[in-house]
Amino acid sequence: MDQILRIQMGGAAGPTAKTEPVGAYAGMGGRALTSTLVAQEVPPTCHPLGAENKLVIAPGLLSGSAAAMSGRISVGCKSPLTGGIKEANSGGQAAQVLARLGYAAIVLEGKPADDTLYRVLVNQHGVKIEPDNSLRMLGNYDTVEKMKALFGDKIATISIGQAGEMKLSGASVAFSDMELRPTRHAGRGGVGAVMGAKGIKVIVLDDAGMPMRSPADPEKFKAANKAFVAGLRQHPVTGEGLPKYGTDVLINVLNEAGALPTHNFTWGRFDGAAKVSGETMAETEIARGGKATHGCHRGCVIRCSGTYVDKDGQFVSKQPEYETVWAHGPNCGIDDLDAIAALDRLDDDFGLDTIEMGATIAVAMEAGLAKFGDAQAAIKMVKEVGKGTPLGRILGSGAAVTGRVFGVERVPVVKGQAMPAYDPRGVQGQGVTYATTPMGADHTAGYAVTANILGVGGSVNPLKPEGQIELSRNLQIATAAIDSTGMCLFIAFAILDQPETFQALLDVINTFTGLQLTAADVTALGKSVLTKERAFNAAAGFTSKDDRLPDYFKKEALAPHNVTFQVSDEELDQVFNW
Amino acid sequence: MDQILRIQMGGAAGPTAKTEPVGAYAGMGGRALTSTLVAQEVPPTCHPLGAENKLVIAPGLLSGSAAAMSGRISVGCKSPLTGGIKEANSGGQAAQVLARLGYAAIVLEGKPADDTLYRVLVNQHGVKIEPDNSLRMLGNYDTVEKMKALFGDKIATISIGQAGEMKLSGASVAFSDMELRPTRHAGRGGVGAVMGAKGIKVIVLDDAGMPMRSPADPEKFKAANKAFVAGLRQHPVTGEGLPKYGTDVLINVLNEAGALPTHNFTWGRFDGAAKVSGETMAETEIARGGKATHGCHRGCVIRCSGTYVDKDGQFVSKQPEYETVWAHGPNCGIDDLDAIAALDRLDDDFGLDTIEMGATIAVAMEAGLAKFGDAQAAIKMVKEVGKGTPLGRILGSGAAVTGRVFGVERVPVVKGQAMPAYDPRGVQGQGVTYATTPMGADHTAGYAVTANILGVGGSVNPLKPEGQIELSRNLQIATAAIDSTGMCLFIAFAILDQPETFQALLDVINTFTGLQLTAADVTALGKSVLTKERAFNAAAGFTSKDDRLPDYFKKEALAPHNVTFQVSDEELDQVFNW
Repeated sequence: MDQILRIQMGGAAGPTAKTEPVGAYAGMGGRALTSTLVAQEVPPTCHPLGAENKLVIAPGLLSGSAAAMSGRISVGCKSPLTGGIKEANSGGQAAQVLARLGYAAIVLEGKPADDTLYRVLVNQHGVKIEPDNSLRMLGNYDTVEKMKALFGDKIATISIGQAGEMKLSGASVAFSDMELRPTRHAGRGGVGAVMGAKGIKVIVLDDAGMPMRSPADPEKFKAANKAFVAGLRQHPVTGEGLPKYGTDVLINVLNEAGALPTHNFTWGRFDGAAKVSGETMAETEIARGGKATHGCHRGCVIRCSGTYVDKDGQFVSKQPEYETVWAHGPNCGIDDLDAIAALDRLDDDFGLDTIEMGATIAVAMEAGLAKFGDAQAAIKMVKEVGKGTPLGRILGSGAAVTGRVFGVERVPVVKGQAMPAYDPRGVQGQGVTYATTPMGADHTAGYAVTANILGVGGSVNPLKPEGQIELSRNLQIATAAIDSTGMCLFIAFAILDQPETFQALLDVINTFTGLQLTAADVTALGKSVLTKERAFNAAAGFTSKDDRLPDYFKKEALAPHNVTFQVSDEELDQVFNW
Repeated sequence: MDQILRIQMGGAAGPTAKTEPVGAYAGMGGRALTSTLVAQEVPPTCHPLGAENKLVIAPGLLSGSAAAMSGRISVGCKSPLTGGIKEANSGGQAAQVLARLGYAAIVLEGKPADDTLYRVLVNQHGVKIEPDNSLRMLGNYDTVEKMKALFGDKIATISIGQAGEMKLSGASVAFSDMELRPTRHAGRGGVGAVMGAKGIKVIVLDDAGMPMRSPADPEKFKAANKAFVAGLRQHPVTGEGLPKYGTDVLINVLNEAGALPTHNFTWGRFDGAAKVSGETMAETEIARGGKATHGCHRGCVIRCSGTYVDKDGQFVSKQPEYETVWAHGPNCGIDDLDAIAALDRLDDDFGLDTIEMGATIAVAMEAGLAKFGDAQAAIKMVKEVGKGTPLGRILGSGAAVTGRVFGVERVPVVKGQAMPAYDPRGVQGQGVTYATTPMGADHTAGYAVTANILGVGGSVNPLKPEGQIELSRNLQIATAAIDSTGMCLFIAFAILDQPETFQALLDVINTFTGLQLTAADVTALGKSVLTKERAFNAAAGFTSKDDRLPDYFKKEALAPHNVTFQVSDEELDQVFNW
């Protein structure tokens, strides 16, 4: 992992690949690497689809090793959706494979002279970039099938669907999972549009012949990893709730808390919640012969993903995540799991962020394009995106554009990015994260649901402003650090609650890398990542006015608790004043 | 003119009207009044289509008097297009009529409970607000015909077309002209969408029984006005060029200068320029029985407007202005005056900003939706807006949204508003104005074409950065003041070149109002308006990063002079450092 692969698409004689030493980016992984490289090399005021933007794909510091949970990958760029810096994070196989191939990052640069579509093969022999216009306007599923036919089934893929090719701001980058299906996505911020603007349809990774990365101290590493895994298995969230029901276990929890955004963030509870809960989904999957427990990448011990099959047992999609179920379900008034799974499959195939799409369809419903609860209308709308009709292009551009085009006032976005599945009035710490993270509304950037709702890492009243700033701040710092390790964010539950598991994580990192990181170093890393990201955004023109929720969250009270967002602007401005 | 009419649309029992003394806004007219009121009463971070935004319609300080050229009207609000403060300015009859009715402004406030459409009648007896859903989705022409049938032909109208009803960011507010046609528009910034969000389709003004406003010193006023008119008649631009050929006289001038933006700002010259020049248009109009010389409001002595008729002598539209001819002509590669007039008519009828629409269609052509030069395709696209199809809604939302939805990088906007008919590389002073005016790219805000191209008010090399900051600064200050008087901006040519005409203007103002304004007071007024506007924008989240042209103007050289935009960011930041 001591090399960076740069693919220059703007050369006069076509694309070229260059492998160079990791240099100044040494010791960085994941989000630390993507955000540092973007901050360093991309002009903050450039056009996100232009030659000067770069798409950085970086596995974590521990990816490609035997460390449990280390298979996350970061995708960074200037975002076409927010206009600010972006790191979108995904599971899937690519992180492990890319790391084993020796790359700390792939950087896509420049602007192609024409609209030829390219595929890239990276294996032990090097890099091959070839035009392949036969891939044009294929979905991710067909694209991966074609790659399988060409390169066998031991590969991992990084691809875009129709949405990325059309450079829509809701486009994702898809990563194949262990079954070689394009089900894991760096969804947020339109990173797929930047890949589309570079003219690359798919990157095929083949690590045949490459060994697993070896630790600095193999014995101690093994012991530390064992303790780390034991800690994850011991915590109720990572040891029981997530494996058994998947992330969708949160439907009942958030509904009970009165913070499940329903009908475009109008209410905090959904009548049909039980029908789309994780419990119902797991039961349905098991009864039909799908899988309720399954890992999204090699080395996962939480195994919160699954397989959703139809009534005949045929594969439909991966088990939709909580945020997807919420986005296409309660937020649109839809209580039909089969429809939600069909929407998840369409999103994955077209290469769309499920959160942005669900939020967008709810805005379209508020505009009167369809009735809340009309699942078939929702499916029809997402299909429009795949076809690239004008309506499809509007919707694929996300909630903010859709609200603008249809004259809707209630559009739940921050920095142009749609809010995920936690109403900021019902989980006020989450509201602080939405408002202030450099990423635009993003739940993972500082997941205050922990202390606000789950009682993990302490307890802070979700309906009051007190304590939310500190909570969000600490979580944002920790998250920026975790997103740099390649570790799945879900390890946070165990390391927040169990000091010995946090120590085990440090030991895993140190015995693998040979470093001597302390808790203070981890905090410093998180702060340094956030500082770089905020500096980029400021240079792009962001101010404190961008660190705000839309006004209506401060005015419209959310049932059932009848509470507005209570954290003041002055408090919000203190989040990064550490 | 000592009253403000406030129409509150958000009342529980429906809309209400309240007339109140002008109070703290006394002595202000036009842009000074709209910008002061918006800055004072509208929260900068509110949603432009929400209850808190206000639409302010204000005649100028001298409107309704016998002062020549005093018939301009200002429309102000928070702009749905730019997100900042907006003043859009129009000719037509309303300024004179509204001022004679005694109103310094009409302010539309609040948010209606449902989508009932209203018409408002203002006459000597007061104000009447009535629901009239029979007007729904009518064009401005049909709307005015209906008002004529109801209220006779001595009225003046302020209305929106389909675009305003749909709350599209490209929507204008239409003002009827002397022939009671809705041909004069406050076009820029989506002010029509704000009127649409207030649920008001049309305001009918009837000044029957109301006298002309009388001057403080009638004798001296008469003399001053005479000297002022003589000055206007004596200047070659206002005395000859504009009356004879209309504003479109600029096509040949800008083409010659190599600054006529062609094919979406790709080149500075257009092969078909002669076919769409003011000279050709005047010739065509006269030959067909139209009018090449005509005033847009009572009291106009420049008479730069006209009437465009078809081959059979039937009225098509008012004589399209230079910026309209450019937008729908050279910028889209179209050299057919009949097609351009048809587009002008469609824009006026649907209630769309012609500049934004032409710029948008060129962006759509760059996206591949039609070929440059295809006039029928352009007409078809504008018709989509009137129909409210998804494509129409995209286009009606302006160039920035269209660029975003279709993934186009070369989008000529500043603060989200499309650039008008002067390439900022070929007229660099104009580029400074586009970049820095609080209005978003706007040529009228500081019309540096004067000294850059026309040799009016001095001479500054249009292709070099030297002197442009000072030029734009002085023009922006003067314009903010003139836009507050109700005077047509075209008086600027004569007052810049002829000190005695500037003195005559001061005399007109002072003898009418009884004030003792000096040139220094005019400058102070202009500065104070700009300061309020910039403070509003800063509070809405604008920074110096918003005072920039898109990057590509600094990188792509413009033929035939092969020059990029040369004014540095540091210089741009000095414009308001007076």
